[in-house]
Amino acid sequence: MANIYDTANQLERELRESAQFQDLRGSFDRLKANEEAYALFKEFQTLQQTLQQKMMAGEEMSEEEAQQAQSLSQKIQEDEIVSDLMQKEQAFSLVANDLNRIIMGPVRDLYEA
Amino acid sequence: MANIYDTANQLERELRESAQFQDLRGSFDRLKANEEAYALFKEFQTLQQTLQQKMMAGEEMSEEEAQQAQSLSQKIQEDEIVSDLMQKEQAFSLVANDLNRIIMGPVRDLYEA
Repeated sequence: MANIYDTANQLERELRESAQFQDLRGSFDRLKANEEAYALFKEFQTLQQTLQQKMMAGEEMSEEEAQQAQSLSQKIQEDEIVSDLMQKEQAFSLVANDLNRIIMGPVRDLYEA
Repeated sequence: MANIYDTANQLERELRESAQFQDLRGSFDRLKANEEAYALFKEFQTLQQTLQQKMMAGEEMSEEEAQQAQSLSQKIQEDEIVSDLMQKEQAFSLVANDLNRIIMGPVRDLYEA
């Protein structure tokens, strides 16, 4: 039986070589090469973090933040590079969630039984 | 190259056969065989979920809940079966976190670069 860390490293390589990860990296490279799209993406990441922290602290979004979120979400829909990245993120997360569901199956069974 | 899902299944088997998972399952079996300890564990799980939901909703713990949490945490420290399970959970989570850190390394690098 292979060492569990060897197998994890093999899985890491296979995931890195998967179409979904290659697509994600390709979209990311394209994003970083485009200053305007990258700024939009960064702005979105920052807003997302701010809203998450607020949610954790039980605070509501301000009117200004709600408007900012709506305006950003529209800009993103119109930006082909950022929307493409988000589609690739979604496709990759399906694979990542599948892997996690498989690997952690026995633990889930233990707690659900 | 093996199929990525084959590798995930291999990792699942190896994790299931690991000392840390076997220990966790052993402690869990022992817990379930002891009615009193199992009731204590269930009570702890329920309180933990309630407090997590409150935290997500930004609500504070009531005085009653704080007292309940403290009394439960003392009972758990004194209960050899439940404390043993919690130690085994902690040891297992070190392995699980390691695996996740390895497998998701390339994704982390992508977003941090």
